Amino acid sequence: MISTQNLTSLLLETRERTESICKPLEIEDYVVQPDINVSPPKWHLGHTTWFFEEFILKLHKPNYRLFHDDFAFVFNSYYENIGKRVVRSDRGNLSRPGVAQVYDYRHYVTNELKEFLSGDISEEIEEVLLIGIHHEKQHQELLLSDIKYILGNNPLLPAYQDSINEYPIQNQEQEWIDISEGVYEIGFNDSGFCYDNELGRHKVYLHDFQISNQLVSNGDYIEFIEQGGYSDFNLWHADGWTWIQENNIQAPMYWHKVDGDWHYFTCSGLQKIERSAAVCHISYYEAFAFAQWKGARLPTEFEWEAAQPYFDWGDRWEWTESSYLPYPGYAKAPGAIGEYNGKFMVNQKVLRGGSVATPPNHTRPTYRNFFQPELRWQFTGLRLAK
Amino acid sequence: MISTQNLTSLLLETRERTESICKPLEIEDYVVQPDINVSPPKWHLGHTTWFFEEFILKLHKPNYRLFHDDFAFVFNSYYENIGKRVVRSDRGNLSRPGVAQVYDYRHYVTNELKEFLSGDISEEIEEVLLIGIHHEKQHQELLLSDIKYILGNNPLLPAYQDSINEYPIQNQEQEWIDISEGVYEIGFNDSGFCYDNELGRHKVYLHDFQISNQLVSNGDYIEFIEQGGYSDFNLWHADGWTWIQENNIQAPMYWHKVDGDWHYFTCSGLQKIERSAAVCHISYYEAFAFAQWKGARLPTEFEWEAAQPYFDWGDRWEWTESSYLPYPGYAKAPGAIGEYNGKFMVNQKVLRGGSVATPPNHTRPTYRNFFQPELRWQFTGLRLAK
Amino acid sequence: MISTQNLTSLLLETRERTESICKPLEIEDYVVQPDINVSPPKWHLGHTTWFFEEFILKLHKPNYRLFHDDFAFVFNSYYENIGKRVVRSDRGNLSRPGVAQVYDYRHYVTNELKEFLSGDISEEIEEVLLIGIHHEKQHQELLLSDIKYILGNNPLLPAYQDSINEYPIQNQEQEWIDISEGVYEIGFNDSGFCYDNELGRHKVYLHDFQISNQLVSNGDYIEFIEQGGYSDFNLWHADGWTWIQENNIQAPMYWHKVDGDWHYFTCSGLQKIERSAAVCHISYYEAFAFAQWKGARLPTEFEWEAAQPYFDWGDRWEWTESSYLPYPGYAKAPGAIGEYNGKFMVNQKVLRGGSVATPPNHTRPTYRNFFQPELRWQFTGLRLAK
Amino acid sequence: MISTQNLTSLLLETRERTESICKPLEIEDYVVQPDINVSPPKWHLGHTTWFFEEFILKLHKPNYRLFHDDFAFVFNSYYENIGKRVVRSDRGNLSRPGVAQVYDYRHYVTNELKEFLSGDISEEIEEVLLIGIHHEKQHQELLLSDIKYILGNNPLLPAYQDSINEYPIQNQEQEWIDISEGVYEIGFNDSGFCYDNELGRHKVYLHDFQISNQLVSNGDYIEFIEQGGYSDFNLWHADGWTWIQENNIQAPMYWHKVDGDWHYFTCSGLQKIERSAAVCHISYYEAFAFAQWKGARLPTEFEWEAAQPYFDWGDRWEWTESSYLPYPGYAKAPGAIGEYNGKFMVNQKVLRGGSVATPPNHTRPTYRNFFQPELRWQFTGLRLAK
Repeated sequence: MISTQNLTSLLLETRERTESICKPLEIEDYVVQPDINVSPPKWHLGHTTWFFEEFILKLHKPNYRLFHDDFAFVFNSYYENIGKRVVRSDRGNLSRPGVAQVYDYRHYVTNELKEFLSGDISEEIEEVLLIGIHHEKQHQELLLSDIKYILGNNPLLPAYQDSINEYPIQNQEQEWIDISEGVYEIGFNDSGFCYDNELGRHKVYLHDFQISNQLVSNGDYIEFIEQGGYSDFNLWHADGWTWIQENNIQAPMYWHKVDGDWHYFTCSGLQKIERSAAVCHISYYEAFAFAQWKGARLPTEFEWEAAQPYFDWGDRWEWTESSYLPYPGYAKAPGAIGEYNGKFMVNQKVLRGGSVATPPNHTRPTYRNFFQPELRWQFTGLRLAK
Repeated sequence: MISTQNLTSLLLETRERTESICKPLEIEDYVVQPDINVSPPKWHLGHTTWFFEEFILKLHKPNYRLFHDDFAFVFNSYYENIGKRVVRSDRGNLSRPGVAQVYDYRHYVTNELKEFLSGDISEEIEEVLLIGIHHEKQHQELLLSDIKYILGNNPLLPAYQDSINEYPIQNQEQEWIDISEGVYEIGFNDSGFCYDNELGRHKVYLHDFQISNQLVSNGDYIEFIEQGGYSDFNLWHADGWTWIQENNIQAPMYWHKVDGDWHYFTCSGLQKIERSAAVCHISYYEAFAFAQWKGARLPTEFEWEAAQPYFDWGDRWEWTESSYLPYPGYAKAPGAIGEYNGKFMVNQKVLRGGSVATPPNHTRPTYRNFFQPELRWQFTGLRLAK
Repeated sequence: MISTQNLTSLLLETRERTESICKPLEIEDYVVQPDINVSPPKWHLGHTTWFFEEFILKLHKPNYRLFHDDFAFVFNSYYENIGKRVVRSDRGNLSRPGVAQVYDYRHYVTNELKEFLSGDISEEIEEVLLIGIHHEKQHQELLLSDIKYILGNNPLLPAYQDSINEYPIQNQEQEWIDISEGVYEIGFNDSGFCYDNELGRHKVYLHDFQISNQLVSNGDYIEFIEQGGYSDFNLWHADGWTWIQENNIQAPMYWHKVDGDWHYFTCSGLQKIERSAAVCHISYYEAFAFAQWKGARLPTEFEWEAAQPYFDWGDRWEWTESSYLPYPGYAKAPGAIGEYNGKFMVNQKVLRGGSVATPPNHTRPTYRNFFQPELRWQFTGLRLAK
Repeated sequence: MISTQNLTSLLLETRERTESICKPLEIEDYVVQPDINVSPPKWHLGHTTWFFEEFILKLHKPNYRLFHDDFAFVFNSYYENIGKRVVRSDRGNLSRPGVAQVYDYRHYVTNELKEFLSGDISEEIEEVLLIGIHHEKQHQELLLSDIKYILGNNPLLPAYQDSINEYPIQNQEQEWIDISEGVYEIGFNDSGFCYDNELGRHKVYLHDFQISNQLVSNGDYIEFIEQGGYSDFNLWHADGWTWIQENNIQAPMYWHKVDGDWHYFTCSGLQKIERSAAVCHISYYEAFAFAQWKGARLPTEFEWEAAQPYFDWGDRWEWTESSYLPYPGYAKAPGAIGEYNGKFMVNQKVLRGGSVATPPNHTRPTYRNFFQPELRWQFTGLRLAK
């Protein structure tokens, strides 16, 4: 158990960081949902707040009064146990509650939490509170990805802010790291917070493999494009091939060819591509096809976890070959909190690492992110293995 | 020709009225598009402005500088002759240009027009300018309907403003007006402005018919609902029956049953239904089924036009049995302006009258409105004939 | 009333003609439904039989035993009053009942009808029987169109039979027939059979117009194609333009360019196009765009009916500008028979004439055919007016 | 290498068995495709033939003449390397080639193969020939599943034949088999034929687990249904829950409640459910939800393979928790044959075992079948682990 004082600091810090991400936005930017996977920023602000209201204050704070009776309906994401909710595709159709009211909601709940934390809390409540904090951190990453999408899909291509270094230069030599055959321990085995999907530390047998010390670069990826990677069906999964045909995909998301040169939209606006930086915003299908073209493959999540002490990581969420499945002995929590991870363990691929959008101290070597194989609005990349 | 001074007044009045409709809105309300037919208010503000910029200023004002190079792409609605544009379903995905910038755009263009009108203008330009003004008036009506939809489909059901009397009481006795068989003249035959689809005054032979002096009321419509109108397939067109099944339609749009009583959402918020007022927000399919149930029918647009001197109208756009087709001798104008009406003359039904949302002095006895038979977010109603 | 003997002859002749249309088919051809609008031939055979069983034998023949309890479910087309049925899109998913059983069903019902007609029948029953016979004749036309579609959309392009002259040469000079302004009587006014949608003879005022003495030819249509008719949006309705874009339409149905020359699939197989013959298998949208391109228009159904004594017709169903709407005083019959026509009087265009696929003595000057504006698997063409 | 004589026997036996499966069919049954996953029997007959023609005769038999130039277009399933083909959803729209012609095609190709095999063939050709034979065996299983679907989804529920014992009684006691933690070898390690996806025998670390000696029975599954399994969202994956809602799934495929008792459609027609027999025709989602409800889980494919010597299997393809992924060192063959397995290794779950529809001697302990998680027209079941 961490002290309530530290918990309060962590909470307040997290609550504030979310709001600071939204600082550069115009009010209009808070409202729209240009893709089903992209939630309006004000929805993120409300949803992370609702989580604390629903799972902490409503249940545990004596005489707590809901900020608004209908907000559970508006801000519940997918918790069937909590009840009916705005369907996901409708989030961008709601002009109300307005941005100012959502901030009022945030501040009301933050203050109530602060007050609540001035007393003693049980270990069980602390656990849920920590989930709420880490849940909000996860949404900070989504929030940034969603803001980038909202601006990057606008025909005016407005910039967000300059301070994010989305494409740090990789200036090491590419090398293959050798990892020896044997039994490895996989899963969380530390003090501190982790999600239930990392628990159940267990043994995995790995065969000899090599993994690259660095991420695939924009330069490598341009070569793939120029050598016809997007038109050679032998490189693609059948589902991936259908996906690129139906969506007319010919480059990573946010790439534009301007006067013959590749550019990409970044949080600072449209920029010329930096060839040495790691490629970003690709789907699993593209990562797989690139690896096929290189005569290599993606690592499994177990290989990645075993090898990660030997390379730098954290700029890109890295697609792995692994499907998102429960570890041996995985058991989801009872009730609504149990819906957090378990019910998504099908039809998704695991990503490992973290990204330029991940909040500080949020990810760790055992962290498992997961998305459907065609999604690419997150800061995704790839590392080769063989 | 009207004087340039009067033209300027009419223009400025119209431009201002559009903005005054938006006064009660929050910034967030300007942005969303909760249905493909419902455009964001800021889009209406920009589109009506773009119309003047594209068809007047760009072509005829010497040295005119576009306010923004990309706004034609953002604010063109459907003019193929003008070029590519944001697809209609994407209007609600654009947070930028922001509301303030759209107002700047409006004021820039209004000022440029004012300056332009201080000189002499040709009759041809005057004609286009008048189309632009009446085009903006049409959008005022759409704007109000869209605002109502944006708020009325929000789970919080926020009110817009109190001053619109959407459901005026009908306190006359219902009577049947007899119209005698014979040849009638149909179409515009007046001085002043009209659209090209009203021109081509021509003769139509009408047989004896009767038409009601008033609109079908909420009370009548509740009876239709209660007697199973929505579940008797014999009353419906095949397409209408499919439509109510697939969309689970059981009452007019905006109707809610609260504690056993019918209410409707109005611009002033949720209200108990006023039985004597004219029913509103019904589709052509519903209007037709109601008439079948009553053993009556809808008038044709010709019957309506011939009979209209003998009854009051203007509270509801009234569905007619007529399909939207060209009058004899109809010819569309060359170029982009020709796209205004002609290309929509298929798959739509004609509505006659006007509504509580119609700007003052905008409609007239020969005015032809038109919508697809399933639409009902406009202030539509019905009048029986037999 | 016609004599029961003549009625029996007419019935038997009709029943037999349907079967003779199917003679050239392989068993496999009876089963498939390559488009929602194309029913499997065995379904036509069964449905026309079920019509007699349901509306005559079951109700009026004492002790009649259904051939099979489930056939009403299988062969009901759209009669809500009769009960549940196989959804339309599933007709081609049913391998059973097999072709032989469907023929057994036909013969059983034909024999029962014959026996039934050996006694006296009421005028009311005669009327329904006549509807049944004419209903089957309508299906003969659909049957042929559907067979052509089934074979013409097969990559092997198998021929059906040689005896149908689908593209008779037009060897008259094109001339414009002048029709004078005035009041014309429209609708059925004869002895013999007609559908309810032709009844209600009434007056229509027509203005002076001209109508062509012949149909638009393949040669004319090729010129339209070659001069870019399919890529000039100004010629098209907005809905028509969307339709040709989404379906990549660039020529009439069944046209193929082989080694640089236009060919079409006919019932006798692929053939080089005969330029003087009337164009066939075009949608209303194409007919309209062609007329726009020619600076002409389509006639209304009233103009067509008034002018038809002065030109030859019967090779093509001719698209008109009229929407399918009830005539003044139209009233549908009570019960299931009332579903025959009335419930389709929305979203469809009227066609007049008849076609090379129409059974002998089936059509007449007042006959109203109707289809959605995008359909073209019928033998449709166009005649210009101005 | 097996002798050419044995190879010829195996080939002829296989070719004949395919045809014998079709013996009980009516010609109409060969043609339809009531679901995108269900191919018409005549397509299976043609496709398995085309495989030999394309990959053996065309390439290796001197002076081989194609049976028909267009058959590659008609019968290619998904081999991008071979060229364009009929889209999958159109297979049931083709009445031609007819059944008789498809049989001619079969016999022509079988004879050509026989002749070809009377000479010497290289090891490489033998390998492809063996793939062709096993490919055809796989299609025998699909053929039977598809026939069952074609008949079982027909409202007349016609029987196929009596000789298949789809629901053998399980009369052992249910017991849990204990498997000890350790490193296990997984993958093919035998002489004889296997697919490329079984190769790459490798080590896997398994933790202690228990696996049931028998399949989940109909009786158990009825209990799951009756205790509300299909309405408790906590048991389901999010995707599974959406799937049962959208498709209104409330029982395994082919189950019907008749007069209050559960029945299922079998190849012998509708039958009362045998409670002790293994449940069949369930999706992965249902298998998972059932296991959740029982407080157990599905085995991984590795657990299954390690444990399979200790239980009987072969009546049901058994869903596993494993996603279909390549084994370490997996490499697909170059060219079209490489499309056989590799490009499907995403978005599918592995099934192990075999079923009552599997041809004799076709499956083996290392055999990996795979389907999307919602499919259930195969003879699928489940075995619990914990």
